[in-house]
Amino acid sequence: MTKILCRYKPVWNVQIQFRPAFLGGIMKATGNSPPAVIPKKGIYLQSDIVRLGKFCKLPLHLPADFFDVIITKGSLSAQRFLTALEIVHEKNGGIGNSPLLESLSRQFWIRIWSRDEDITKLDSLTAAAKEAGLTPALIEQLMTLHETSEVKERLKKVTNDAIENGAFGMPWLVVHLPGSPSFSLFGSDRMELLADLLGEKWYGPVPPLPKM
Amino acid sequence: MTKILCRYKPVWNVQIQFRPAFLGGIMKATGNSPPAVIPKKGIYLQSDIVRLGKFCKLPLHLPADFFDVIITKGSLSAQRFLTALEIVHEKNGGIGNSPLLESLSRQFWIRIWSRDEDITKLDSLTAAAKEAGLTPALIEQLMTLHETSEVKERLKKVTNDAIENGAFGMPWLVVHLPGSPSFSLFGSDRMELLADLLGEKWYGPVPPLPKM
Repeated sequence: MTKILCRYKPVWNVQIQFRPAFLGGIMKATGNSPPAVIPKKGIYLQSDIVRLGKFCKLPLHLPADFFDVIITKGSLSAQRFLTALEIVHEKNGGIGNSPLLESLSRQFWIRIWSRDEDITKLDSLTAAAKEAGLTPALIEQLMTLHETSEVKERLKKVTNDAIENGAFGMPWLVVHLPGSPSFSLFGSDRMELLADLLGEKWYGPVPPLPKM
Repeated sequence: MTKILCRYKPVWNVQIQFRPAFLGGIMKATGNSPPAVIPKKGIYLQSDIVRLGKFCKLPLHLPADFFDVIITKGSLSAQRFLTALEIVHEKNGGIGNSPLLESLSRQFWIRIWSRDEDITKLDSLTAAAKEAGLTPALIEQLMTLHETSEVKERLKKVTNDAIENGAFGMPWLVVHLPGSPSFSLFGSDRMELLADLLGEKWYGPVPPLPKM
């Protein structure tokens, strides 16, 4: 959903505010469980992801041990690292998301969903940060910061905000429209509905670039 | 999904074979559970259904006691009634689905999802059958047949076939393409993907009628 939303950003002229949150915490708090724990759902899910990846023209290759990577290992360290980036960005007077947040999030995605690489170890976090274009000094700063209680509390707060908003899983999208109450959408399969609710045109998962 | 698929039948020139099955049985056999049993998912699901109903231009109004109608009462009697219709159709030498199966399925849908009416009592089955255009003689025949072990065994077999095919919920679609292995799709939100896999064009949930 994130990638497709980013493709539509210039087409629909929308702003995207990323909020790194901890999926495991959302699942636990709401009594939800990952689809893959139901064996037949897990089998279907894998073929579904591969088909959707092709359809959406994403460089997607399933990790060899899907269950271990997605369910057992999860993404807590990566989310803390992303949260630390936002804290540093704000401390430097930045407003809205850091321009690096999207590229760092994408690098984590690529490691898991395209190259079957780890995102839980310190080396992995550093490698992703380098590829996302973060400077060595900033990476050093995030390495120190991402395990502090400041980061942990901030990630907990964003996660709780999502739960209070109604989230029970991810992706969870909060849509703000001028003059209307905000509303939330769950799942990567509500993009065409989102277009309709925004009064915008849906061109499929790969929209034509707008004319400059 | 069924309604949208029926809209696309003449557009994509596809055949649809309905297989009445028992969702509760699929859920139980696969260890799956209805989304609405997770409270936050249940809340989201209701707004999601209403939004999708509008987007798809369906006459959708949620039943007042959603949980009771969908989870507690379910659709076992209605599925047996549909199964009985198929058995009578075949005994009369019919090949493929009875032409009445789609209209009778739709009448059950309308009772639940549009008019908040019952589909579990004998009177409800009869009323739906009348509205679907079944003759009094045929309705009489189905009333006698739908609680017999012949119907129960047939419904069990179709349900088991779905489970063996990989189903863990509904809607479950098995797609047959000439010269290719068949594949399965789950959920009402895979229609655009289906179009892509069929090599056909997706026009959104309400396609223009093909020119005669």
